[in-house]
Amino acid sequence: MATVEQIVSATAQFIRTHVLPLDDEYDGDIAAAGGDATRLRLQAAAREAGVFAPHAPRDLGGLGLGMVERAPVFEAAGYSLFGPIALNINAPDEGNVHLLDQLATPSQRERYLEPLARGEMRSGFAMTEPAPGAGADPSALATTATRADGGWLINGEKHFITGADGAGFFIIMARTGEQATMFLAPADRDGLEVGRHLKSLDTSMLGGHCQMRFSDLFVPDEDVLGEVDRGFAGAQIRLGPARMTHVMRWLGAARRAHEIAVAHVADREAFGARLADLGMMQQMIADNEIDLAATRALLLEACRALDDGGRASKETSIAKTFGGEALHRVADRAVQMCGGLGTTHELPVAKIAREIRPFRIYDGPSEVHRWSLARRAVREIVG
Amino acid sequence: MATVEQIVSATAQFIRTHVLPLDDEYDGDIAAAGGDATRLRLQAAAREAGVFAPHAPRDLGGLGLGMVERAPVFEAAGYSLFGPIALNINAPDEGNVHLLDQLATPSQRERYLEPLARGEMRSGFAMTEPAPGAGADPSALATTATRADGGWLINGEKHFITGADGAGFFIIMARTGEQATMFLAPADRDGLEVGRHLKSLDTSMLGGHCQMRFSDLFVPDEDVLGEVDRGFAGAQIRLGPARMTHVMRWLGAARRAHEIAVAHVADREAFGARLADLGMMQQMIADNEIDLAATRALLLEACRALDDGGRASKETSIAKTFGGEALHRVADRAVQMCGGLGTTHELPVAKIAREIRPFRIYDGPSEVHRWSLARRAVREIVG
Amino acid sequence: MATVEQIVSATAQFIRTHVLPLDDEYDGDIAAAGGDATRLRLQAAAREAGVFAPHAPRDLGGLGLGMVERAPVFEAAGYSLFGPIALNINAPDEGNVHLLDQLATPSQRERYLEPLARGEMRSGFAMTEPAPGAGADPSALATTATRADGGWLINGEKHFITGADGAGFFIIMARTGEQATMFLAPADRDGLEVGRHLKSLDTSMLGGHCQMRFSDLFVPDEDVLGEVDRGFAGAQIRLGPARMTHVMRWLGAARRAHEIAVAHVADREAFGARLADLGMMQQMIADNEIDLAATRALLLEACRALDDGGRASKETSIAKTFGGEALHRVADRAVQMCGGLGTTHELPVAKIAREIRPFRIYDGPSEVHRWSLARRAVREIVG
Amino acid sequence: MATVEQIVSATAQFIRTHVLPLDDEYDGDIAAAGGDATRLRLQAAAREAGVFAPHAPRDLGGLGLGMVERAPVFEAAGYSLFGPIALNINAPDEGNVHLLDQLATPSQRERYLEPLARGEMRSGFAMTEPAPGAGADPSALATTATRADGGWLINGEKHFITGADGAGFFIIMARTGEQATMFLAPADRDGLEVGRHLKSLDTSMLGGHCQMRFSDLFVPDEDVLGEVDRGFAGAQIRLGPARMTHVMRWLGAARRAHEIAVAHVADREAFGARLADLGMMQQMIADNEIDLAATRALLLEACRALDDGGRASKETSIAKTFGGEALHRVADRAVQMCGGLGTTHELPVAKIAREIRPFRIYDGPSEVHRWSLARRAVREIVG
Repeated sequence: MATVEQIVSATAQFIRTHVLPLDDEYDGDIAAAGGDATRLRLQAAAREAGVFAPHAPRDLGGLGLGMVERAPVFEAAGYSLFGPIALNINAPDEGNVHLLDQLATPSQRERYLEPLARGEMRSGFAMTEPAPGAGADPSALATTATRADGGWLINGEKHFITGADGAGFFIIMARTGEQATMFLAPADRDGLEVGRHLKSLDTSMLGGHCQMRFSDLFVPDEDVLGEVDRGFAGAQIRLGPARMTHVMRWLGAARRAHEIAVAHVADREAFGARLADLGMMQQMIADNEIDLAATRALLLEACRALDDGGRASKETSIAKTFGGEALHRVADRAVQMCGGLGTTHELPVAKIAREIRPFRIYDGPSEVHRWSLARRAVREIVG
Repeated sequence: MATVEQIVSATAQFIRTHVLPLDDEYDGDIAAAGGDATRLRLQAAAREAGVFAPHAPRDLGGLGLGMVERAPVFEAAGYSLFGPIALNINAPDEGNVHLLDQLATPSQRERYLEPLARGEMRSGFAMTEPAPGAGADPSALATTATRADGGWLINGEKHFITGADGAGFFIIMARTGEQATMFLAPADRDGLEVGRHLKSLDTSMLGGHCQMRFSDLFVPDEDVLGEVDRGFAGAQIRLGPARMTHVMRWLGAARRAHEIAVAHVADREAFGARLADLGMMQQMIADNEIDLAATRALLLEACRALDDGGRASKETSIAKTFGGEALHRVADRAVQMCGGLGTTHELPVAKIAREIRPFRIYDGPSEVHRWSLARRAVREIVG
Repeated sequence: MATVEQIVSATAQFIRTHVLPLDDEYDGDIAAAGGDATRLRLQAAAREAGVFAPHAPRDLGGLGLGMVERAPVFEAAGYSLFGPIALNINAPDEGNVHLLDQLATPSQRERYLEPLARGEMRSGFAMTEPAPGAGADPSALATTATRADGGWLINGEKHFITGADGAGFFIIMARTGEQATMFLAPADRDGLEVGRHLKSLDTSMLGGHCQMRFSDLFVPDEDVLGEVDRGFAGAQIRLGPARMTHVMRWLGAARRAHEIAVAHVADREAFGARLADLGMMQQMIADNEIDLAATRALLLEACRALDDGGRASKETSIAKTFGGEALHRVADRAVQMCGGLGTTHELPVAKIAREIRPFRIYDGPSEVHRWSLARRAVREIVG
Repeated sequence: MATVEQIVSATAQFIRTHVLPLDDEYDGDIAAAGGDATRLRLQAAAREAGVFAPHAPRDLGGLGLGMVERAPVFEAAGYSLFGPIALNINAPDEGNVHLLDQLATPSQRERYLEPLARGEMRSGFAMTEPAPGAGADPSALATTATRADGGWLINGEKHFITGADGAGFFIIMARTGEQATMFLAPADRDGLEVGRHLKSLDTSMLGGHCQMRFSDLFVPDEDVLGEVDRGFAGAQIRLGPARMTHVMRWLGAARRAHEIAVAHVADREAFGARLADLGMMQQMIADNEIDLAATRALLLEACRALDDGGRASKETSIAKTFGGEALHRVADRAVQMCGGLGTTHELPVAKIAREIRPFRIYDGPSEVHRWSLARRAVREIVG
C-alpha cells in the first residue's frame, strides 16, 4: 500500500502532466474546458494513476486517508484549479462524502454515497438562502419542511448552491418547526428546480453557484439524513473538515502562484539587477513563504484535532480565517511580483488570485469566525 | 460659463442616467458593450449634456479645466467604468491630449491633437516593451529609430499598448542612439502592426492592451514629437498628470463600490442586528472613508503642485502609490461587506475591484515609486 | 509682521538650538528636566526668539495664527518633545486658550485666559473619569454639580487629567441634571484635590496625567464657562481644533524620528551595501514619507474646514484617526531602521515611538472615531 | 517523573504565586526589583517547586526537556517577565547552556557549564559589535584574536552584550584570520572590561545590555570553545534553538497581555454595551487569538525539526520573524483594548509591549530573516 509521501508524489506528477495544461488553456474555467465530460475524463485518468478519491473510505474505492494525511495530498491536487475535480475531492462533493459516510443509512449509502464517491454523480449541499434567509447566520433559515403522508414537503428558495447545475442529488437543509433537518433528494424529482448561475469571481467550481427553488418537493421519511430536528448538529460534522479541505486545496493554488512569481522575478532584470535580488521583491517572496508556512502549520494543528475526534471549532476557525486571508495575500503578491504580465492571462497568477478571493467569505466570512473566536476567548479567559 | 461645481453635478447626473446602466449590463466590459460604436454614442450624449472633454483646451472644444478642477469632475466620471470613455478622458487619450497640447507643432495639432480632443479618433502611447525591454525601468528601451532619408526608420516590439486596437495614431518612444525620441505615426502606415490583446483583469479600456511590432516603420522628420533625443524629458510632461487622472477616475470607481456596499449592509440583518450596525462592518466602512479621504487629499496636494507649474514628482509618486493601494483596499472591503453577493456579478463591486487592481502596477509599480521616494528622501535629509 | 514661513523657520531654528539638547539629555522626561522651572526658562527664550504663543490672539501677546497657519509652526515645535511647552502650545493649555477665547466672560478672560496665554499659569481640562464614568463615551459623566447659594457644588472623581499637577486652574465638566456644564475653578480652592500621577508611556506632558477629586467644591455662578447645561456643546468648540493640534505636534516628532533613521541607515553598511540602499530599508523610508505626507494632507483639509468656520467633525475624525495610527507607524519603522540602537536611549527614536503611542487612544480612541465615521457614512449614503 | 503537562501546570502555578507579584510591583524592571539577589531567591523557590532549569540536562540538575517539550513550559514561565530568570532559562544563559552542552570539553563543562546550569553564575555571549563591526551581518566581525604563547590575545569592542553586568564568564566571538573562533573567559580576567549599559526599551534582562572592551585579553588554548576557525559554525548550534526559546518566552508574555485586556473589556461598558461585545473589540480579541495560535503552530513546527536533529534554519527563521511581529501586535492590541489605562503602569500591558518590541530586531532583524528566506526560496524554486 502506498505511503502518504508516495500518494503526494504521484498526485503532484499526475497534476502536472494531466491537469495543469488544461487548466491553463482555459484559464481555470471548467465550464469552458468541457464541464462534466472533462471531469469524467480527468477522473478516469486519476483512477488510472492511483490517486483518485484519497479521502473516500477504502470500501468505496478511496484511499482512506485521515485529515492530517489528506493535507499534503489535497495541496498537491489544488496546485491546479482543476486538480480537485480530477481527484473527486472538490467542494461540495468531498464534504458530502464525509457527511454521508457518518450519517447515511445503508440504503442511503447505496443510492447516494457510493455513486458519489465513485464519481458517477455529483451532489449539492442546499443550505444558503437569499436574504433575509440563512446566510452567514444559519438561524435565519427560511426554507420549510412540513409533515406530509409518509414524508415531508419542502418549500423555499436557496442560492449560491455550489455544483447544483448537473448534480445528481442534493442534501437540503430545511426548517422543521423550531429546529432544522437535513433531507436527501435526487435532482430530477418534481418540485426541485435549479435556477440560474450567480456569475462569480471563481470559475473552477463545476456546476456553478446556482439559485434553487423547492415547491412542494416531497421527500419520503427514508430520505431524512440523520435525525429529524438535528440538522444543524448534523451539518457540524461536515463543517469543520470541509473548511480544512478548502484550505488544503487553495494552499496548493497559492503555492503555485508563488512559485510562478518567484520564477518570474528570477528571470528578469531591471535597474541593473535581477528582480529576485531586489529587497522589495525579497520582502514579498519572504512574506509569501511565511504566509504559506503559517497556513500549513495552523491547518495541521486543526487536522490533528479533527483526527483526534474533536469538533475542533476553534482550531478550524483559526485556520480557515488565517488561511483565507493569507492565501489571498500570497496570490496578490504573486500578481504584483509579475508586474504587468501578472494582471493578464499570460501567467496563471491573476486567475488564482481571483479564484481564492471568495474564500474569505465562503464557509463563513472572516468576520463571523472572528466574532465566534472572540466570544469563545472571553468565555475561556473570563469564565 | 459653468462653475466646477456645476460641471461636477452635471457629470454625476449624466453618468447615472446615460452611462451606468450600460456599464452594469455588460459588467464593465466595453468590448462586449459595443466598443467604439458605443463610445461614439456616449460621447455624443456627453457633448449634448455639456460635460464632454473637461480637460481639453477651450479652443479644441473642451472645458479647459486645470488639474485641481479636474479632480472632482474626473471622479464623477469614474463613478462608472465607462464614464471616462464617455467624456473622452480615458487613458491614454487624456494624457496624450495633454502631451500634444504642450509639444505638438501646428501641423501636428491639426492632424493629431484636434481630432483626438474631439473624439474623432483614439490614440496609443507606445512605450512599454516585452522583457528585456522597457518596462518599469524605461532605460532598457530596445525599440530603435535610425536615420533615414527625410525621417526615421523604427524597429522593435511593444506590448501592453493600451487602446492600440482601433487607435488612429500612436506616439512611439524609440531609442535614438543613447537617448530616446518620441514619434507620431498614423495607425495605417506600413510597418506598424497591432497584434493580439493581452487579456487583462481590466476590461474597461477601449482597444485593449495590445502587442505591437514596428518593422522599418518610416516616420518623416515633421512627425518627431518634441525634440530629437529629448523623448524621456518629453514623456515626463505626460507622466505626472496622467498618474493623477488615473487616481481621479479610480477614486470615482472605488467610491461607487463603497456606496454600494454601505447600502447593502444598511439593508441586511444577521444575528439580530442590521449589518451596518455591527462593529466589524463599521470598521470597514470607516476604513473606506479614511482611505478615500486620504487619497483625495494627497491627490489635491499633487494637483496644486502641478497647477503651480512644477513637475511634482514627489507629490504625484506619493498620491499614485497611496491611491493605487488604498483604492483597491476600498474595493476589496466593499466585496467583503457584500458577502457572497459581493463575489458575483449581481453587484458591481467585484468588477470594480478587478478593474482597480492593476493600478498598483500601471504607471509605475508601487515598488518603483517607493524606490524613487526613498532615494529622494535620503538626498533631501542627508544631502 | 512675520510671514508664516518666517515663523516656521524661526521656530525650527529655536527648537534646534534651545530645546532639542535638553529634550535629548533627559530622554523626553520633562519632570526630570526640571518641570515648570524649565518651562518658564524655555518660554522666556521663545518670547525672545519671537515664536511664543503662535496660536494666541494678538491682544493676548500671541501671533494670532489660524489653523492652517498653525500647522507648520506646531509641526516645527513638535520636532522636540519639549518644543510645545516652550511655545506654550502644549495640551491642554493650547486647547483651553482656544476654548476660553470663544466662551470666557470679560472677567474670566482677565482671571484665567490672559495669564494662561502669557504662560503665567498652566491649566487642566477635567473631563475624563474612572470607570464607569466618562471615558471614550462622555455620556457616562458621573461628576455632579448641584445648585447651591450663588453657585454650584461639585462632587466626583476624575483621572487622566493632563497637566493637573501644578496647574493654576481647571475647566471642569460636571453633570447638571440631564445635561452637562463647564465650570472654572482655581487650583487652590477648597474641595479640589489633585491626586497621584498615572505613570504613563509618555513623559513629556508637564504636570502628568493625574487623578482628581472634587468634594463639595464651590463654584460661583460667575465661573460657569459658557451656558449652564451646554457643557458638551461648549466642549465641542475645543474638541476638533485640539485634535488637530495634537496631530501637528506629533507630526513634528514623527518627522524627527524619520530623519534620524534615514541619517542612520545612510551612514551604515551591511552585507556589502549602504543600509539606505537596501530595498527593505527603502520600503520603510518610502512608507514613512507616504504616511507623513498623507497625515499632513488630511490635517490641512481639516484645518481649512475649521478655518472656514465649520465643526469639521468628519474631517478632524479622519485626520486624527489616520494621523494617530500613521505617525506611530512612522516612529516604529524608525526604531526598526535603527536596529539595536533604535531600541535604546542612544537615539531618540524609541522615546518618540513611546510618546506617540497613546495618541491612538487620547482624544478618542481610533475605535470610537471609526464608529462615528461609519454611522455618519451610513447616514450620508443611505439617508 | 513528571509529565510535561505536570511541569507546565507546576510552572504556571509557581509563576502566579511567586513571580508575578514582584514583576508587577517593579513594572518588569529586574534591576529595580533587586537584581541578582532577587534572582537567587526566585531560583531557590523554583528549585523548591520542582520547576528549575527545565532545559538543562538531567545530570546537571535540569529536567532534560527537548525543544517541543520546552515550548509550553517556557511559555508558562514567560507569563511573567521575571519568570525566565526564576527558572534559569533567560537569555543568554539558556542558549549558552545549550551551546556548552554540545561543545564544551570536560574541564570547560566543570568550570563553566555546571555552575551556569545550577544558577551559580550568569554568562554573556559577546558577539555584537558597534558599527562598522558585527551586527546584523556577522561577517563584519572586527574583534581579533591573535596567537600568543599558549593561547590567544583578544582585542576589540562589543556592545549590546546582554547580561554582561554581573556575568561570571563570557563566550567571545573573535576573528582568527579569515575565520572566527569562540573563546571562554571568566569575567574577572585582566583585559576584559564591562562598560556602561545601553539603556533599552526592555528592562527585564538581568545584567543589562552592555558595552565591553577587550584589551590584550589572554585566553589559554584550553578555553577555546569548539574548534579554532569554526566559530560561526559553532554559534549556529546556539542560534536556532535560542531564537525559538525567545519566541516561547515572549509567547507567554503576549498571552498575559491578551488575557489582561480581555478581562478588562469584559468588565467595562460604553455606549450601552459591554466593551467585549463591541465588534471592533471582538476583532482585536480574535486577531490576538489568531496571532497567538499561528505563532505557537510555527514554533512547534520548528521545534519538531530541531528535535529531529536538523538545523531548521528555514523553520526557525519563519517562526522567529512571524512571532517577533505577531507577538508585538498582540501586546499592542492589548494596550489599545485597555484604553487610557493601557498606556499607563496601572495595567501590565504597556510594559509587555515595550519588552517585546525589540524582538523584531534581536536575534536577527525581521529584514535579515526575510532576506535569507527569500534567497532560499529562489534557490529551492528556481534551482
